[in-house]
Amino acid sequence: MAYRTAVVGGSGYTGGELLRLLAAHPAMEVAYATADSNAGASVADLHPGLRSAYPDMVLETLDSAALVGLDAVFLALPHGASQQIVPGLVGEVGHVIDLGADFRTPVGNYETWYGTSHQAPELLDTFAYGLPELFRPQIADADHVAVPGCYPTAAALALAPLLDTGSVECESIIVDAASGVSGRGRSLSSVSLYSEASDNFSAYGLLDHRHTGEMEYAMARVADRDVTILFTPHLAPMPRGILATCYARPASGTPTTPGLLEMFREFYSNEPFIEVVDEPPGTKATLGSNAVHLTARADPRTGTVLVIAAEDNLVKGAAGQALQCANLVLGLDETSGLTSCGVAP
Amino acid sequence: MAYRTAVVGGSGYTGGELLRLLAAHPAMEVAYATADSNAGASVADLHPGLRSAYPDMVLETLDSAALVGLDAVFLALPHGASQQIVPGLVGEVGHVIDLGADFRTPVGNYETWYGTSHQAPELLDTFAYGLPELFRPQIADADHVAVPGCYPTAAALALAPLLDTGSVECESIIVDAASGVSGRGRSLSSVSLYSEASDNFSAYGLLDHRHTGEMEYAMARVADRDVTILFTPHLAPMPRGILATCYARPASGTPTTPGLLEMFREFYSNEPFIEVVDEPPGTKATLGSNAVHLTARADPRTGTVLVIAAEDNLVKGAAGQALQCANLVLGLDETSGLTSCGVAP
Amino acid sequence: MAYRTAVVGGSGYTGGELLRLLAAHPAMEVAYATADSNAGASVADLHPGLRSAYPDMVLETLDSAALVGLDAVFLALPHGASQQIVPGLVGEVGHVIDLGADFRTPVGNYETWYGTSHQAPELLDTFAYGLPELFRPQIADADHVAVPGCYPTAAALALAPLLDTGSVECESIIVDAASGVSGRGRSLSSVSLYSEASDNFSAYGLLDHRHTGEMEYAMARVADRDVTILFTPHLAPMPRGILATCYARPASGTPTTPGLLEMFREFYSNEPFIEVVDEPPGTKATLGSNAVHLTARADPRTGTVLVIAAEDNLVKGAAGQALQCANLVLGLDETSGLTSCGVAP
Amino acid sequence: MAYRTAVVGGSGYTGGELLRLLAAHPAMEVAYATADSNAGASVADLHPGLRSAYPDMVLETLDSAALVGLDAVFLALPHGASQQIVPGLVGEVGHVIDLGADFRTPVGNYETWYGTSHQAPELLDTFAYGLPELFRPQIADADHVAVPGCYPTAAALALAPLLDTGSVECESIIVDAASGVSGRGRSLSSVSLYSEASDNFSAYGLLDHRHTGEMEYAMARVADRDVTILFTPHLAPMPRGILATCYARPASGTPTTPGLLEMFREFYSNEPFIEVVDEPPGTKATLGSNAVHLTARADPRTGTVLVIAAEDNLVKGAAGQALQCANLVLGLDETSGLTSCGVAP
Repeated sequence: MAYRTAVVGGSGYTGGELLRLLAAHPAMEVAYATADSNAGASVADLHPGLRSAYPDMVLETLDSAALVGLDAVFLALPHGASQQIVPGLVGEVGHVIDLGADFRTPVGNYETWYGTSHQAPELLDTFAYGLPELFRPQIADADHVAVPGCYPTAAALALAPLLDTGSVECESIIVDAASGVSGRGRSLSSVSLYSEASDNFSAYGLLDHRHTGEMEYAMARVADRDVTILFTPHLAPMPRGILATCYARPASGTPTTPGLLEMFREFYSNEPFIEVVDEPPGTKATLGSNAVHLTARADPRTGTVLVIAAEDNLVKGAAGQALQCANLVLGLDETSGLTSCGVAP
Repeated sequence: MAYRTAVVGGSGYTGGELLRLLAAHPAMEVAYATADSNAGASVADLHPGLRSAYPDMVLETLDSAALVGLDAVFLALPHGASQQIVPGLVGEVGHVIDLGADFRTPVGNYETWYGTSHQAPELLDTFAYGLPELFRPQIADADHVAVPGCYPTAAALALAPLLDTGSVECESIIVDAASGVSGRGRSLSSVSLYSEASDNFSAYGLLDHRHTGEMEYAMARVADRDVTILFTPHLAPMPRGILATCYARPASGTPTTPGLLEMFREFYSNEPFIEVVDEPPGTKATLGSNAVHLTARADPRTGTVLVIAAEDNLVKGAAGQALQCANLVLGLDETSGLTSCGVAP
Repeated sequence: MAYRTAVVGGSGYTGGELLRLLAAHPAMEVAYATADSNAGASVADLHPGLRSAYPDMVLETLDSAALVGLDAVFLALPHGASQQIVPGLVGEVGHVIDLGADFRTPVGNYETWYGTSHQAPELLDTFAYGLPELFRPQIADADHVAVPGCYPTAAALALAPLLDTGSVECESIIVDAASGVSGRGRSLSSVSLYSEASDNFSAYGLLDHRHTGEMEYAMARVADRDVTILFTPHLAPMPRGILATCYARPASGTPTTPGLLEMFREFYSNEPFIEVVDEPPGTKATLGSNAVHLTARADPRTGTVLVIAAEDNLVKGAAGQALQCANLVLGLDETSGLTSCGVAP
Repeated sequence: MAYRTAVVGGSGYTGGELLRLLAAHPAMEVAYATADSNAGASVADLHPGLRSAYPDMVLETLDSAALVGLDAVFLALPHGASQQIVPGLVGEVGHVIDLGADFRTPVGNYETWYGTSHQAPELLDTFAYGLPELFRPQIADADHVAVPGCYPTAAALALAPLLDTGSVECESIIVDAASGVSGRGRSLSSVSLYSEASDNFSAYGLLDHRHTGEMEYAMARVADRDVTILFTPHLAPMPRGILATCYARPASGTPTTPGLLEMFREFYSNEPFIEVVDEPPGTKATLGSNAVHLTARADPRTGTVLVIAAEDNLVKGAAGQALQCANLVLGLDETSGLTSCGVAP
């Protein structure tokens, strides 16, 4: 018997990826899926690659009553929308798995970086920050899960071994990252047009991208002290993928590249979705998978430690990690319904 | 207990895709994989997305003795190579699943289109042409399978409903198709360079592409008479995907679009990997899947029937179809280890 | 002294390309440029690559009075808009160069394919069809020019040598073409998103794309009899470029490939923008240029003549051809401000 | 009368771009072009977009005698090759414009970063470092020019205003950059294949890319003291373009973003190819042009100054800058034959 789930916000790219992964999950089924402006459209029309899995499913206008009693409800909504509906859900459904930013960080961090007051701060404690490799026990024990953002997932997995061991200074960390265009979502905007984004590489969100606050929060928990990060996201001409190139300064001594790689391999030794590799990883090898590929370098010449992380922004950066967390809170095998093999070329 | 298989030619794109699909197959395991010039390299080095599934596997120089007793041996070799090694395999392994051109068509057709004499014509009868939707009983009964080419798969599935029913003339069929660059394989060539292929669309193989003969052969079997096809392949700036746009003339009467769509839906009514759709399909929705998306149109104004087929050239056009055939000859569920959901965007 | 011009509709891709080409024209200057919803924005904001050429120019809301007395006014507007404003312009400006569809074909053809009645049919005779290689004398003598569509330009230049010489049948011509995504313009639509269009190849406008009527009209003028064309456009994952693959049947006899190539070379022997090449041309070699690359094949096996044309849809398919026509009507060197060298890779 | 030039190494992408630009130069002509393994091929075959400009030119095996007396000889050769032939050229030709690394930096820097001894150190002083915006007088006075590398051009133009004014610390500068695949050249390699590079973003040359030494050398000249740079190049899925995102620490005080932008605008106030822009620039707007687009930010929160530079790696990063330098040494208008308008979309 399968756990019954819903995807709230099934018309976008994250929602579509959830539907794709859930269709292959051996122990979950999608009982209900919603859309906002696309309500009434079929899954097959909005996601033509999913027609065979959802031949007849129509995306409905959200009716909270339809969610009551479901085992897990995935929220794939624009930031700010979850806090409107979560208060009505928390007692009615088994677990809320929120892919938005609303329940990821403490209220102060949220309000600083999102610039608005939080509408349901009293519920923040019922959500675990859903990065299993770093916070697995907390997730397994939690009622609900706030799935990390795409960039913070890559950056946190890159930096955690360094910060957990106090190997680098907590100030002056730089995260320079590039994302595929699906990271901008499916809403219409000039920047997202093929003719604009193709053959183009550019930065955006300089100095104040909202994921900065989330990165600092997650890394502070790992380091057990404040962490300051300068985050520069870029838009790369590819549909999926995030590569985060992270720079930090050694806290003391002179780390070596073999030593760093060994530390990373040990830190992630039992992680099914983490690969520590010798050569610089590329995003393509992670496409469609829940894997993160990492490498590290020590540069005594400039006094820098360099770590690079590659992931699929829609899978480990969103829907795959959501499913990984749902597996955890439901007591299933954490890898169920997920692959660590990328679709390449 | 899993069936034991080998991938002979595991370093190229088709071999890599076989390894990816076999890693997720619930009833098969890869006991052995080979490479030619890349022998000695690890699977993980050549296919970094597969590291987690094959952490220690090294591609070996082919040793036929190592294949003896295996349940299924997949050959993903350059055209012409299979006929050299199949004679030594046929009595020693359960089933040969050849992804090359050597055993697809009768000897005359082969020698005409490939311009060389066949080295093992006596074995041609032991191979079924591995297009399950059209030749399922023959495959299930066969010892060995010759998996169709990528273009012929798309074209045959597009044209078969028309030719099987005598709905179109067998002469003057045009197949105008575009393929992603992985169709050219992984060998180094100037045309395959990113800087050459990106932002470029061009035709190649004008008038005499070798897949023409294979299409004509497969379609003649369906039509039960000779079929003549003009095939024009194009190279499109994308890694995967084939779209075949096919033109034929009605044999009699004036077909209608609704009638054609209905005919196609009936013809493929029980096929798990075929979707007949109203709107023109795109290759992207099939990426990573074994699906083929088809639509059809009747144009009374010009006296033409138009059929369009979309597939992933490396899956339904190669490795996925090979696995589908292996499932058949081993008596497994035909869809085992395969998905019909595409990875998009 | 430079001719003074205006670009009406300067915010889209065609308008931007006009501005780019005009910035380099030795004998024209842009006195005025307009936009509709983007009025008030600077050229530099909408076309950041043109900042240095137009450091201070702002796109204005169209004020017809501002056009009075200009030597040439380029209209780069959505189809249907030109016929609204041309009646007020024809006596007030030197030459109207319209890049839309409104004045390309006779009123019957227009109304059949565009499905609306024409608002200024009495002015159709004052416009020449702006394909200089086929209708140079008419353009040079005309007051105004209707610049051909992107697909018709490629198809007409591919088919004209065959139809002019009566070499092929006028029925049963197929034009199977692929365009880069800029052909869809800059307006926001889901299909034009990077995440949708990348890695995707699909057909659209099946059987009834409006450019069909224009192709048939232009080819009928060349053939001096009715011509019937089935046109199938495709969307290719690249920003620019059109490749048209055209199929026709020999009218009599058995043409040969060398004979066809010779015929094409002779037909276009003095054309500065036409290259007849032996190998299949690609779109990339024409990028940014006004060139068209053509090849031809005769296939006695299937009784078909095949012609392929490559061009940049925004240059020879729009803004470049407009400038070529403006040069003609102004009595300038036809190649002024234009290049036949593509920007590749 | 035109200056007579040669392109030595005309088969690669840099050589092809030189041929493209020279074809449009009003005061230069290409008298001779060479290739190595491609000798005997025509320009049109290797660069199909240049057929019209070089209808009959064949790439010759280099014969130094053929260069004697030419006004300018462009060397577009693999690194290490120039120093073999320059000794035989310096007295025989007007000016050598070398696009390779051999004559860019002092012998010690060269030997450290290239790992081999220099074969013609006595000629280093006859070459100016060809970055006109920073070293214009030296270039104008020089006999010969060593054209900077693609990455150093972007990084140097980004960092120079800061280092020239002592605004940032000279240690702990990070240059994180992404290049299109043409930066890898036209030689065959697995990494350069379309199927590998498409949809992929990855770093390479970690810690020790050879352009690091060149950046440090050029910046030390500007800063008049030693400069240390950590340079991380990435490969982006696009044919052309470099974006360099540079991080430095303020030397003192708290710079502001408006102050930085004002400083940059003043520093480059008379530069025809430099645009200082408010919004983050993208590579696409520079495609095919000799422009560099720059922006800057001050981040008091993390104590960082951020500068971003965008350019076309084959133009301002190679062939265009070579032509700009040739204009200088020949006493021509520095912008002759060059555009600052990008071809977009």
